[in-house]
Amino acid sequence: MSMKAVVYNGHGEKEWKVVPMPRIQSPTDAIVKLTSTTICGTDLHILKGDVPTVAPGRILGHEGIGIVQSVGDAVSSFKPGDRVIISCITSCGKCLYCARNLQAHCINGGWILGNEIDGTHAEYVRIPHADASLYAAPKALKDDALLGLSDALPTGFEIGVLSAKVCPGETVAIVGSGPVGMSALITAQFYSPARIIMIDTDESRLAIAKKLGATKTINLNDLTKNSVLDEIMDELKAEGEWDGVSTNQTPRPGVDVAIECVGSPQAFNTCEKIIAPGGRIANIGVHGKLVHLHLQDLWNKNVTITTGLVSGYSTLTLLKVLQGGKMKPDLLMSHRFKLSEIESAYDIFGNASKTQAIKTYIESDDL
Amino acid sequence: MSMKAVVYNGHGEKEWKVVPMPRIQSPTDAIVKLTSTTICGTDLHILKGDVPTVAPGRILGHEGIGIVQSVGDAVSSFKPGDRVIISCITSCGKCLYCARNLQAHCINGGWILGNEIDGTHAEYVRIPHADASLYAAPKALKDDALLGLSDALPTGFEIGVLSAKVCPGETVAIVGSGPVGMSALITAQFYSPARIIMIDTDESRLAIAKKLGATKTINLNDLTKNSVLDEIMDELKAEGEWDGVSTNQTPRPGVDVAIECVGSPQAFNTCEKIIAPGGRIANIGVHGKLVHLHLQDLWNKNVTITTGLVSGYSTLTLLKVLQGGKMKPDLLMSHRFKLSEIESAYDIFGNASKTQAIKTYIESDDL
Amino acid sequence: MSMKAVVYNGHGEKEWKVVPMPRIQSPTDAIVKLTSTTICGTDLHILKGDVPTVAPGRILGHEGIGIVQSVGDAVSSFKPGDRVIISCITSCGKCLYCARNLQAHCINGGWILGNEIDGTHAEYVRIPHADASLYAAPKALKDDALLGLSDALPTGFEIGVLSAKVCPGETVAIVGSGPVGMSALITAQFYSPARIIMIDTDESRLAIAKKLGATKTINLNDLTKNSVLDEIMDELKAEGEWDGVSTNQTPRPGVDVAIECVGSPQAFNTCEKIIAPGGRIANIGVHGKLVHLHLQDLWNKNVTITTGLVSGYSTLTLLKVLQGGKMKPDLLMSHRFKLSEIESAYDIFGNASKTQAIKTYIESDDL
Amino acid sequence: MSMKAVVYNGHGEKEWKVVPMPRIQSPTDAIVKLTSTTICGTDLHILKGDVPTVAPGRILGHEGIGIVQSVGDAVSSFKPGDRVIISCITSCGKCLYCARNLQAHCINGGWILGNEIDGTHAEYVRIPHADASLYAAPKALKDDALLGLSDALPTGFEIGVLSAKVCPGETVAIVGSGPVGMSALITAQFYSPARIIMIDTDESRLAIAKKLGATKTINLNDLTKNSVLDEIMDELKAEGEWDGVSTNQTPRPGVDVAIECVGSPQAFNTCEKIIAPGGRIANIGVHGKLVHLHLQDLWNKNVTITTGLVSGYSTLTLLKVLQGGKMKPDLLMSHRFKLSEIESAYDIFGNASKTQAIKTYIESDDL
Repeated sequence: MSMKAVVYNGHGEKEWKVVPMPRIQSPTDAIVKLTSTTICGTDLHILKGDVPTVAPGRILGHEGIGIVQSVGDAVSSFKPGDRVIISCITSCGKCLYCARNLQAHCINGGWILGNEIDGTHAEYVRIPHADASLYAAPKALKDDALLGLSDALPTGFEIGVLSAKVCPGETVAIVGSGPVGMSALITAQFYSPARIIMIDTDESRLAIAKKLGATKTINLNDLTKNSVLDEIMDELKAEGEWDGVSTNQTPRPGVDVAIECVGSPQAFNTCEKIIAPGGRIANIGVHGKLVHLHLQDLWNKNVTITTGLVSGYSTLTLLKVLQGGKMKPDLLMSHRFKLSEIESAYDIFGNASKTQAIKTYIESDDL
Repeated sequence: MSMKAVVYNGHGEKEWKVVPMPRIQSPTDAIVKLTSTTICGTDLHILKGDVPTVAPGRILGHEGIGIVQSVGDAVSSFKPGDRVIISCITSCGKCLYCARNLQAHCINGGWILGNEIDGTHAEYVRIPHADASLYAAPKALKDDALLGLSDALPTGFEIGVLSAKVCPGETVAIVGSGPVGMSALITAQFYSPARIIMIDTDESRLAIAKKLGATKTINLNDLTKNSVLDEIMDELKAEGEWDGVSTNQTPRPGVDVAIECVGSPQAFNTCEKIIAPGGRIANIGVHGKLVHLHLQDLWNKNVTITTGLVSGYSTLTLLKVLQGGKMKPDLLMSHRFKLSEIESAYDIFGNASKTQAIKTYIESDDL
Repeated sequence: MSMKAVVYNGHGEKEWKVVPMPRIQSPTDAIVKLTSTTICGTDLHILKGDVPTVAPGRILGHEGIGIVQSVGDAVSSFKPGDRVIISCITSCGKCLYCARNLQAHCINGGWILGNEIDGTHAEYVRIPHADASLYAAPKALKDDALLGLSDALPTGFEIGVLSAKVCPGETVAIVGSGPVGMSALITAQFYSPARIIMIDTDESRLAIAKKLGATKTINLNDLTKNSVLDEIMDELKAEGEWDGVSTNQTPRPGVDVAIECVGSPQAFNTCEKIIAPGGRIANIGVHGKLVHLHLQDLWNKNVTITTGLVSGYSTLTLLKVLQGGKMKPDLLMSHRFKLSEIESAYDIFGNASKTQAIKTYIESDDL
Repeated sequence: MSMKAVVYNGHGEKEWKVVPMPRIQSPTDAIVKLTSTTICGTDLHILKGDVPTVAPGRILGHEGIGIVQSVGDAVSSFKPGDRVIISCITSCGKCLYCARNLQAHCINGGWILGNEIDGTHAEYVRIPHADASLYAAPKALKDDALLGLSDALPTGFEIGVLSAKVCPGETVAIVGSGPVGMSALITAQFYSPARIIMIDTDESRLAIAKKLGATKTINLNDLTKNSVLDEIMDELKAEGEWDGVSTNQTPRPGVDVAIECVGSPQAFNTCEKIIAPGGRIANIGVHGKLVHLHLQDLWNKNVTITTGLVSGYSTLTLLKVLQGGKMKPDLLMSHRFKLSEIESAYDIFGNASKTQAIKTYIESDDL
């Protein structure tokens, strides 16, 4: 039996071609027929050859919604016909990392889909440890609303918002307004910060950020004399026009939370510059080189810096918020394709600055 | 110098009468001229003689907004002319309770206004430990938006929402839709629960709760065959119509959080009955007698029960959320009076079931 | 194939008799040959007929150490010959309760051993969901050091110490010095409280508590004029002999943490009476009837009350502390038996007040 | 009235000379006569001219125990004759930083003693905001046991142990065994980690670390082929000799917590290299230049890095642990002097690598 899939052929090369169908290899596996999938910035990194664990011949992709086709003997939560959300993280549910909600580092899983094992840019995919790596999809929600739950939304939420412990009334800055920055923006609002400031150089993305709830946007290209911190402090001070003069309520010199969603030294340094004493910097960006950490300035500022790969432990929480009607992540789906057109989707997404792509929605040709 | 104030004359008796002006007694005191005040359910309890610490001759009231008239030598944050929010809790900022955000139990303060010292149902009030017990009021917000910060909102937030640790996606039930229940309802939304179920017997209050964000209301008088838990589970199950059948995602049998805002054994027992394993019950209600705790059912349910008097440590957070435009507490101000009409305000508020009063807004005659 | 086991024959009746050997029923099962086991207070409750889920014919027991004999196809962490600790809680590792460290309520497990399925008072036992319900035993530790990890130690730790959030420098009271109270005593010391006060009526147990780290013991039978709270405050005040007189450092009127390890209304009420404002009461005791909760006194004391059945999520942590040499739980093993003598062990343990039994150590006849 | 004090005369220069006595300047001030003081590494930094906020003419020192001589009108917790611990951090108890336990950044205080105002290397010192900046000293404890509470112990505890959230059973590495590293070592034990590995190049300090509770020491000068991580993993693996082979319990590749107590890029990089996925790095060291943060390795390791200046909010907790007899910080007092010999104390402490000084105990000549 065969199917079609996007196969990585080594540096810069991929192909939509016929490959064998996946099959159950272990009693905890499930085979899922994809009804939809999407492309992640990481897939582009793989194509550039930046991810050495991905060998030529690998089927790409780690996000998707689908229908269970078959399950191993030990799978108890799902049966053929069930509609499911595929987590980008495979987790065994029993190792010491899973026990600490660090499924990203699961000894028997982690991020392996479209990396160490074949992925979701295909008609069918094998999901190991299916019981802990799939989620039943609610009838009332369509694929385009659920697709963000595979990776982008839990990434923004777990590694950005939860790591940084966003609290009601706080000021949050998000550096980078790609899909993950937008996911941080959407999920930061679960905690009612007073302000969310979106920082980028792409005006069209900043405009979308405004629609998604940013209270202020800063286009770094527009800054002439003011630093980013100046811009932020002007905003904070404007609100500080107390009737009284209580110095005890003077705004702190910077933001409570800064979330790095780019993966560059510059973006990280912007976070360092704007953080207030006692503030938290959450790094989500994938970095390829070291950054300069200005400990000579930060050592006594009581700041916290966090890093991380998504674990997916928040997926059910996100699903409940979604069911409660509190967020509309389908707004992130900027372009739509059939699975047979996935090569075009790669082109559009790979050229996001021109095409203004955020997330591509790629659905099965059978629908 | 004299002024007018509401003086408690012993069981059931109060009088709006001429009394001496308060004056600075300690270097940490401030004298504040009230621009507005409001009446709390506790003031009615005092009138009924339920609060033995209140002696005849006491000026009632512990909420208000005003203008600083004079300050002691050690007050550094405020000066005459500053517009301030008065916290119902007086806190020294230095005892071991204040250090733990348990200002309710401050060795040098706590809830003393309108209780152990004269209160805010007056033209002027003395505020001890002014630096830690007053907050500068932002110019952009009017008294009716700020008045809830004195007591009702921090009570609902600290003793209800924060004690119960409301989380995104959860199901919250609030038993009792008086001013404190409404405050819990408003502030629970800071954490994006998927559902907030308001439970009461007063249809007009439940209608207001809907406007303030309740996703479902249950009028106990309307229940015939169904128990409250049945009603809630019907709602939870409706959403549980998964495309799949994952038992792992079956809704838990009950609510994640139940907030008691009545102060009666029945209301507390309703919370016990509807709480899911792992859930949290936050008691805000003022109780006059013991309740039956059904530990034979709860011992193995991993539930948490919290109690408490407000400490006011969340006041600045609430102020920032308010400044960020995230809540509209002036909706709670159901009736408006001049200070000279405060006796009518007591009558209206004391008869809330007929007058549908929630909070009374009582402003200075000078405005 | 057959073996011997303790079988429950209905109210008050048990028998050590020949029964069929357990066998693999699901791919996630393991069969374990017991090298040691022990009896829990709950086993005595079952015998009294207090636990309706236990049907006649059931093999009792939910604690033990053993050697894996065989495993199902989906078990990946263990193989025949591995020495393992059996958790009293069976957990699937993938349902929404397991995801929240509420394995006690696991949809596919929970406390089922010696309750809804056959247990460990036998030569062999079947363990469902073996990967998440067994722990590899370190070579360096003997069975009598490890046996507490099946139930008593995680119960005292999770439901007592962790629920109550014991902190350095605090005052902890433990009401009841049975095996679970002793486990709370041992594990409370992980957090360096300044004082641990053990309260009971059995002088010999209180003497053991002293050896295990209690800083003070109170024998309720010895109290004549003083209340328990008086006794505690005398102790707290003795230390409060400051050179200065700072009222801000006056000890709080009561204990920071009270842990109920009895399961009686009296023991629970003792906790209510001695708790300080802001304190936490953790109930571990198994209750058969309701208790009177004095909310008229507690509503404004900002206390937290928790309940719960152990989940076992702390087992690895306890194992590491044990490996680090920080505790000596074999001190709890007061009496030793061969498995063929288990009926005598039941007699001794069932008569603890006379025999001074704490935990019985029951080892395989093959050793 | 005059007294003697150590006055900073600009780069490299200090003098023990006659200066005017301090006097009450604000109603919240107290004047304290020192009974003992000690020298901090920061004092040496000041002498090198590294701390630009310290102007010539400033009296140095921010640690000490003493007797209150006089208090301002608004001081309510202390009176002349009270014996007190002086916190190195002055806190007003009412600004938004104090409210968040970030007293290090108190708008009206912070670290100002011996920095922006005159300090404790003197016969008398003025303490602003005395109520929140002094602690009553218990009669039973001598100065040499209490002196660590001024700075070293809360620094190691708050910025090391609490920031890194040390947990029972964990593996902790401390890089740098000076006074602050030793304080982290002492206070880490409050949470019962399974292992504390002390890393330094000074054998005599490592020997003291062993006495103070380190379970292993690594002298960087002794490493030939092995990296620090290799050394640590050998230790972890030795304990991992399970009877079983559960990969789920394999030790994580690194330490759970690394605490930087040096303030150098090398020490920080050591922490980066040895941290396990999910681990926490707490930086206490004072850094004079930037460090290279290897985000290309750490971005997906889910690590947390914290920085900070001590706030002193843990002082009462430390005092209670001390009263409970759980630590013996007087062991850190390696050398003893009279106040009139303080210049010798500076020499000895400034030459710690030769003199093996840890903390100097400097007591009043009047004792």
